[in-house]
Amino acid sequence: MENINLEKKHAAKAAAQLIKNGMTVGLGTGSTVNYFLDALANRISQENLKIIGVTTSFKTAGRAKSLGITIIDIDDAPMIDLTVDGADEVDCHMNGIKGGGAAFLMEKIVAHNSNRVVWIVDSQKLHEQLGSFPLPVEIVPFGSGKLITDFKKHHLHPVLRQRDGKTIVTDMGHFIVDLVLNKIDQPYQLGQYLDGKIGVVEHGLFLDIVDEIIIGTSAGVRQLKRDTLQK
Amino acid sequence: MENINLEKKHAAKAAAQLIKNGMTVGLGTGSTVNYFLDALANRISQENLKIIGVTTSFKTAGRAKSLGITIIDIDDAPMIDLTVDGADEVDCHMNGIKGGGAAFLMEKIVAHNSNRVVWIVDSQKLHEQLGSFPLPVEIVPFGSGKLITDFKKHHLHPVLRQRDGKTIVTDMGHFIVDLVLNKIDQPYQLGQYLDGKIGVVEHGLFLDIVDEIIIGTSAGVRQLKRDTLQK
Repeated sequence: MENINLEKKHAAKAAAQLIKNGMTVGLGTGSTVNYFLDALANRISQENLKIIGVTTSFKTAGRAKSLGITIIDIDDAPMIDLTVDGADEVDCHMNGIKGGGAAFLMEKIVAHNSNRVVWIVDSQKLHEQLGSFPLPVEIVPFGSGKLITDFKKHHLHPVLRQRDGKTIVTDMGHFIVDLVLNKIDQPYQLGQYLDGKIGVVEHGLFLDIVDEIIIGTSAGVRQLKRDTLQK
Repeated sequence: MENINLEKKHAAKAAAQLIKNGMTVGLGTGSTVNYFLDALANRISQENLKIIGVTTSFKTAGRAKSLGITIIDIDDAPMIDLTVDGADEVDCHMNGIKGGGAAFLMEKIVAHNSNRVVWIVDSQKLHEQLGSFPLPVEIVPFGSGKLITDFKKHHLHPVLRQRDGKTIVTDMGHFIVDLVLNKIDQPYQLGQYLDGKIGVVEHGLFLDIVDEIIIGTSAGVRQLKRDTLQK
């Protein structure tokens, strides 16, 4: 765990170096992003950077404000220059699964409106194939029981996300179902299937979205970049 | 207007005749459905029918209860036997646009979980091609300004639905954007495009969903049925 946190810090620090004065920055959600916020706050105070932040969750908004980062609403921002976010699992094709923190709908919207998206992860997040992390799907509460039954019939192994026996409600007022798939052979087809499903608001497959992945190691970082990716 | 209301009543009355004792019935939303609820309530009291209703809006739930119809949650219902709903526009292929009443997300979920779906409409709703009724799209409030800009770029002529200068919020907590398209040449492609759009919860295109359309006329009704439809 100590090592993992060190890796996260390395990745977070490297991402903070990408931020330039005057940028509008998308701020992700999660434990690795929290290290990034610390590193960014340091740079802001030491270098007197002017940064505007767009957040992906109420949690990140609160933390960013407490660190002195100016936050504006996504709709008040021009195009976002760079978004830094974590991921729950990534593969060597630079696709990923997000949603462990239940903020992936807002994260996806922010990423979609960003000129560049960078993920920061520890080394354990990188797998050859996606699916060992359960795939989160954000769904409308109305009729959610019927939708879960439907997922079961399609062998998608859905689990309604709960905490202390109560169903978790996202910042946007939806439920989360985690699909326990173990491996995802055809992420694009699965994404399209879920997109077309009535009652599904969004899913945690982030395909062709990230431009750079910074993977923390015990010694420093290594990077995956889309433009050098073997297609 | 008198004539239209007469047509609606004719269609509503014909649909009420489809209800059998013991059925679980999906109850749509809108002015034509209100006539149907009246006709159904009449049959329930006169014939002592036992009917369970599943509603598609808080509005319909309130009205149905006041008429003495037992309402249960969709997730407590077994499969819904028959859903009766209105539509804002239908074509001769039995596809339609719904959402003028802002309840189409719940309506779509109820329809999707019904063994049979019947629409009741007045004669002015039937057009050769869909699109003269603006296509409602239910979207997540977060980032909605960006999504609307994106729709504009794609020449989809979006209008954020407002009343008295305030943005309308649906029963599910979302916004509605109406796409003023005038005609929709490729409804399936448009539906798939909207399904895949980040921030879109659902759209008002109901394709291959309805089994029977009862069209009110001044003299009575005429019907379109899927099983006799020329493909």
